[in-house]
Amino acid sequence: MTTTLSADLWPDVQPEAARRLMMAALESFAERGYHATTTRDIATGAGMSPAALYVYFPSKVALLFTISRSGHEQTLAMIQQAVAGDDDPPSRMRRLVEDFVAWHARRHTVARVVQYELHALPEEEYRVIAGLRRKIEQTVRNVIVEGVQAGVFTVPDVKTAARAVLSLGIDVARWYDERTRKTPKALGAEYAELTLRMLGAAG
Amino acid sequence: MTTTLSADLWPDVQPEAARRLMMAALESFAERGYHATTTRDIATGAGMSPAALYVYFPSKVALLFTISRSGHEQTLAMIQQAVAGDDDPPSRMRRLVEDFVAWHARRHTVARVVQYELHALPEEEYRVIAGLRRKIEQTVRNVIVEGVQAGVFTVPDVKTAARAVLSLGIDVARWYDERTRKTPKALGAEYAELTLRMLGAAG
Repeated sequence: MTTTLSADLWPDVQPEAARRLMMAALESFAERGYHATTTRDIATGAGMSPAALYVYFPSKVALLFTISRSGHEQTLAMIQQAVAGDDDPPSRMRRLVEDFVAWHARRHTVARVVQYELHALPEEEYRVIAGLRRKIEQTVRNVIVEGVQAGVFTVPDVKTAARAVLSLGIDVARWYDERTRKTPKALGAEYAELTLRMLGAAG
Repeated sequence: MTTTLSADLWPDVQPEAARRLMMAALESFAERGYHATTTRDIATGAGMSPAALYVYFPSKVALLFTISRSGHEQTLAMIQQAVAGDDDPPSRMRRLVEDFVAWHARRHTVARVVQYELHALPEEEYRVIAGLRRKIEQTVRNVIVEGVQAGVFTVPDVKTAARAVLSLGIDVARWYDERTRKTPKALGAEYAELTLRMLGAAG
């Protein structure tokens, strides 16, 4: 189960032992926070010795960074694909929000670590992640600007509107859990509707 | 400075030493997370001995609970006041969002602890906070329902719309910091505008 999920979360990471460590780190970071997690906790959670951990990751920071970078790269690729069509800006924004919201619901544990443990990263690692975040924000802004230029969106401020669009999706990771009755897909569809209204598009 | 801020945050807490401990706890919880903070860290941050801490608070949990309850009670009182007028639902929703968003910007450190360290609370304390959160959510839903009944709001689903309204405000605590150029008040006004559109009200 966990093995399958880790392969699903990080298809590019090899071998399986590295993914197992990432999954153990993820669970502990999400539950207790980065600073309260030790490399021993992670190794134990993965059924390995602390020494074995260092074969795959040089440090606890490296684990957080790998999880965080992967989460950001995946969401960036996902929204870039969502807006890549040549249909109108509202349709592209709809897909973007549907996918972004559904991801934060379905992957809420990964998303929590990705979104809330950023400040634990050292400066150099933080810069890499900040660069990915800027691209995500820029992708959203571009669709809004295109919509404004095409006369289908009207917003008081593009930057604030883009922030609000992303906020709606990101905050899903805070409250969504296994007991939430709405499916990630249904939530994404409703939030896409709310977002289009927020951007002044006909609903 | 810190003393003034703590009196401002917790006017009802006496004596000043208790507020000083709450401030030290707040800063450490916000920076390192609840689980990575020790009572010794908190006492040291407040310039006191660990033994002196126990004069005011029986445990680290008691500090988190006091900070969390106070934050929730303050925001509940604030939004109840915002919607108390007898003007129309859009005007009351506008005040609610302006105040709620501005609070999460101005008090982003408190808000981060209040919003993101909930799961560290033991069951009994969690239940108290969950009760306050339900009242906050119910207050938002009531205004939406009144607006729908008055024909000035149209939403696909009241519960999801209320969730989205609160999400926009709560997520401000994640990203707002001292370097943000927009003032809490200006951000509140813009988000109120976006929220009214989201609820299908004429902008």
